[in-house]
Amino acid sequence: MVSRIGVVGLGLIGGSLALRLVDAGCEVVAWNHRDHPYGEARSRGIVCVDSLEALTASDPEIIVLCNPLRAMPQVLGELSRFLDPSRTTLTDVGSVKAMVRRQVAAAGLADCYVGAHPMAGNERSGFDAADPTLFDGALWAVTVDGRTSWERLEAVASMITDLVGDDLIVVDDRTHDRAAAMISHMPHAVSTALINELCDDPDRAVAAALSAGSWRDMTRVALTDPARTRAMIEEDGENVELLLRSMAARLDAVADALHNGDEESLAEFFRHGQPFRDYRLAMRGRTAPQPKAYPGDDGPRDLTLDGGENWRDDLLRSAVRGERIRSLGPGRTAAVVSRPFA
Amino acid sequence: MVSRIGVVGLGLIGGSLALRLVDAGCEVVAWNHRDHPYGEARSRGIVCVDSLEALTASDPEIIVLCNPLRAMPQVLGELSRFLDPSRTTLTDVGSVKAMVRRQVAAAGLADCYVGAHPMAGNERSGFDAADPTLFDGALWAVTVDGRTSWERLEAVASMITDLVGDDLIVVDDRTHDRAAAMISHMPHAVSTALINELCDDPDRAVAAALSAGSWRDMTRVALTDPARTRAMIEEDGENVELLLRSMAARLDAVADALHNGDEESLAEFFRHGQPFRDYRLAMRGRTAPQPKAYPGDDGPRDLTLDGGENWRDDLLRSAVRGERIRSLGPGRTAAVVSRPFA
Repeated sequence: MVSRIGVVGLGLIGGSLALRLVDAGCEVVAWNHRDHPYGEARSRGIVCVDSLEALTASDPEIIVLCNPLRAMPQVLGELSRFLDPSRTTLTDVGSVKAMVRRQVAAAGLADCYVGAHPMAGNERSGFDAADPTLFDGALWAVTVDGRTSWERLEAVASMITDLVGDDLIVVDDRTHDRAAAMISHMPHAVSTALINELCDDPDRAVAAALSAGSWRDMTRVALTDPARTRAMIEEDGENVELLLRSMAARLDAVADALHNGDEESLAEFFRHGQPFRDYRLAMRGRTAPQPKAYPGDDGPRDLTLDGGENWRDDLLRSAVRGERIRSLGPGRTAAVVSRPFA
Repeated sequence: MVSRIGVVGLGLIGGSLALRLVDAGCEVVAWNHRDHPYGEARSRGIVCVDSLEALTASDPEIIVLCNPLRAMPQVLGELSRFLDPSRTTLTDVGSVKAMVRRQVAAAGLADCYVGAHPMAGNERSGFDAADPTLFDGALWAVTVDGRTSWERLEAVASMITDLVGDDLIVVDDRTHDRAAAMISHMPHAVSTALINELCDDPDRAVAAALSAGSWRDMTRVALTDPARTRAMIEEDGENVELLLRSMAARLDAVADALHNGDEESLAEFFRHGQPFRDYRLAMRGRTAPQPKAYPGDDGPRDLTLDGGENWRDDLLRSAVRGERIRSLGPGRTAAVVSRPFA
């Protein structure tokens, strides 16, 4: 069991994670680029230090990078001077994974790195907003590549499943970043395009006055800080670009079908997403965001992974099948629960 | 003051309206295509009759069509045999207005018709779901054309402002239908395209597993009955088609900007909707869906409308300026409150 963890950055995510790990009985050593949250953090059981050098000197088994993505190259550059990769595994909580791995590699730390992205958060920020329950029921994406060792994956997975108490999936960076583009980054751009469309309407006051639930739902994410949204989209630009082009083609196709009175195409357009409607219906009533209970669940079952180098592919295939990992076990096994999406 | 109102259709909207009007001390006579809600409706003070002939024979000052749009031609055809246009004004609650007016005209009832669309509703249906509070704070769009008389508009407006207790705006059918396409019909198609995009992804289980708030918000309306959504979009097809093409061009432009690293275009894309973000911020904290209180409100002010035929344009311009009508007064005046959208 992991017993000492370093946290870089005491913002909403880093602060919440640190508090959660303290609650789990773990020793947490944290560094923040400014020390204003240290008083409150210390009163809640977090050991705060003044430098990344002091953080590494405390000899944590895992260091979790919770700093903003824009600070990543500088933090990694400094960490690389002090961190002993033979003693410490490095992970992070960033919303893009390929870019972070490139930055980690550039700092010479690739061998000790396992990527991670907890699907948790809210619209607030800073340690004042930190809350250990933020991680209740959250699913983590953990990313590996051909250099990732099973032992380092096991250490990070243990932190997530045993200390934080969440499920995880294991994928490669590309699969993660494509999925994040699909369910978050691209939709943010679509939502922004909707409010732009409204602003260009000469009768926008009439339209805004008549707007109700559907408009509110579809434009809520466009109301968040546009600078943050823009950074998120640019960091995952290649995947977002592809999806935006595909979405544009879909919208043009519906326009064509409406223009031509093409009833069959319209019928297919509205039928096509039925598997997702069915999936959501099956998930309904479970606690957000990632339910632990699912109809037909009869507890986790054990998956035996390849003993050679193909365990990574086995785990990716498990995620693609819609399984979630409740724990990684000794002897390269994974206890998984199913969340099928036909 | 209007004292007797006929309601055609006791579904969610018609039932809620009938109950609201009964609460306001109005005599409400209702007909439904099936009589299963009559027992409960009668116990709550609604007079239920067995035919549209009996409904017209009760001599209501206003008949409100709350039947499904697909039943409109049949209902109008039958009503035209019994209704005395010199005694009764006809209105409706349909979500498209130009089509309904065409159907009303085809039934020979154009002279006694005033269009209406209350921005109220929820995902439920039927009289069981009817609730007079559904109209709390709802804004109504009332539509007129060159044949609409001031007196008929005043009667329908009085029902909305004095009996239901809501604000309204007065616009032409085209302005209404364009606005409805903008804030509801087109976004429904966009939301549906999003779930179609997900379903076509070979890694859709991974993406669905990682989805959280932004995806939930953006796809909620795609989970509603696709047959109803399809009908709504087709009924407003020309406006939806134009907006979908415009949205597709916006998404392609963002894709191009990402591809070319065009920072200025990306900056402009994220800046463009700022007036809407500011508007929503100003509205925040007011009760949904249509707030009565607004920062800077110092009560309604009177607008004097053209005494000749141009009162329709005066009312449309008022709506386009972002004003809402609290009541229409004698001598062609309107008491308005401002909801500016710069």
